[in-house]
Amino acid sequence: MRKDARMQENPLILIVNDDGITAPGLRALTDVVRPMGKVVVVAPESSKSGSSHAVTVHQPLRLDKIHQEPGFEKYGCTGTPVDCVKLAFKVVLGRRPDLLVSGINHGSNSSINILYSGTMAAVFEGAMAGVPSIGFSVLSSRIDADFSAARIWSKRIIRRIMKNGLPEGVCLNVNIPHIPMGQIRGVRVCRQARALWQEDFDVRRDPGGREYYWMKGIFNRISEGDDTDEWALENHYISVVPVHFDFTHYPALDLIRNWDFARETNV
Amino acid sequence: MRKDARMQENPLILIVNDDGITAPGLRALTDVVRPMGKVVVVAPESSKSGSSHAVTVHQPLRLDKIHQEPGFEKYGCTGTPVDCVKLAFKVVLGRRPDLLVSGINHGSNSSINILYSGTMAAVFEGAMAGVPSIGFSVLSSRIDADFSAARIWSKRIIRRIMKNGLPEGVCLNVNIPHIPMGQIRGVRVCRQARALWQEDFDVRRDPGGREYYWMKGIFNRISEGDDTDEWALENHYISVVPVHFDFTHYPALDLIRNWDFARETNV
Repeated sequence: MRKDARMQENPLILIVNDDGITAPGLRALTDVVRPMGKVVVVAPESSKSGSSHAVTVHQPLRLDKIHQEPGFEKYGCTGTPVDCVKLAFKVVLGRRPDLLVSGINHGSNSSINILYSGTMAAVFEGAMAGVPSIGFSVLSSRIDADFSAARIWSKRIIRRIMKNGLPEGVCLNVNIPHIPMGQIRGVRVCRQARALWQEDFDVRRDPGGREYYWMKGIFNRISEGDDTDEWALENHYISVVPVHFDFTHYPALDLIRNWDFARETNV
Repeated sequence: MRKDARMQENPLILIVNDDGITAPGLRALTDVVRPMGKVVVVAPESSKSGSSHAVTVHQPLRLDKIHQEPGFEKYGCTGTPVDCVKLAFKVVLGRRPDLLVSGINHGSNSSINILYSGTMAAVFEGAMAGVPSIGFSVLSSRIDADFSAARIWSKRIIRRIMKNGLPEGVCLNVNIPHIPMGQIRGVRVCRQARALWQEDFDVRRDPGGREYYWMKGIFNRISEGDDTDEWALENHYISVVPVHFDFTHYPALDLIRNWDFARETNV
């Protein structure tokens, strides 16, 4: 168990997001953790929604200090959320923080949305470096989403992690229904639901007559049962999914070991 | 077990990559699968290395047909590898292909490199849609990497998958040492090694005196033992890691269920 965060008297807390430095969700999360320790925000200068674990390798990065006061600093970065984490560790902080929180994302990162999520990629990046890391999302993509319940619950969850730590290599994907505080029924610790974004595209023509495509899509839930994040959210619970970055499918190892790859086959 | 690929007489095979439509590794993989069925390439117009599972949501996409002959088509796309897969399914093919192969990537996607990899993100995207999907990478980032051993072994592995199918939701991350054919000792089916990219940055100044940062990094292996992909590759084996996209850490579920998130704590 990692309990570094608890051990610190005045922990160093890094905040990241993928909606960008001006997002109201980032401000909400900042308000929540400011009383808990020294807080540094390193966030993309503009929205990097859907950027997943992308890193910027073909161009250089810029980093700008936007705000500084005792116990609180804010930086904007031209890169992705994962770039922000790497720059924070190496350039801004010069060390690993005691806690990494990401979000609060405007929009769901439940189920397979975690694969596309820049918010959760930042969390994985933190966990890989051994930092207790949590991502928060609210189920509204609107700029004026209501974060009042999310503020209260994210505070409770962060305090619990600071007390208990997290198992090595495990981080949390927290999704919060976009409903009034009084309607939230509590927290469900659950598994990632199986689902599928059914790809779809708006086909349009530019003034020159050439086609271009806007990605859209329909979210189809596949999992059944009351133990998934999708079930929890639909039933007005906050979903907490412990996730990790070892993608090995262990049950398949023995099966595939029995295949003779060297022998030629004709299909 | 999904055996769709085997069931097809003349399977429809989609090729994707992240190094871009002109990459020699893509040409090598195309040569390998051309004799196996109807082949369609949908690949980024320029390198999208390190783009992970990013999707393009803030701007529209372009798709250009580059080549067409009986049984073979090639398209360039302005988006990421995952955009390519989504456009291929919906716009180019109008259906799921029978097999998706991604690569051959110039450079390793073993261990945690899978998180950053656009090549493997395309594979996950295929697997989420129920398509048997395999990613191939060669351990040389050079444009003139030698794909001769990779051609032979990727053919063997693809044929084996076409014969055996893949378990539902499981896809393969195949990495191939960059050594002559005769030195490859065979295939090891293994788990994803634990490792860490230690972030580092080159700090430079533009002509106006403002700093900018080039990301670099040092790869540190953490895992021990002879059952990881890193071990296999160092010992001149091809590594085959069965991977999946359910990131839930199941052992942590019960542990975290015991925490009382609702109760306020003072740290």
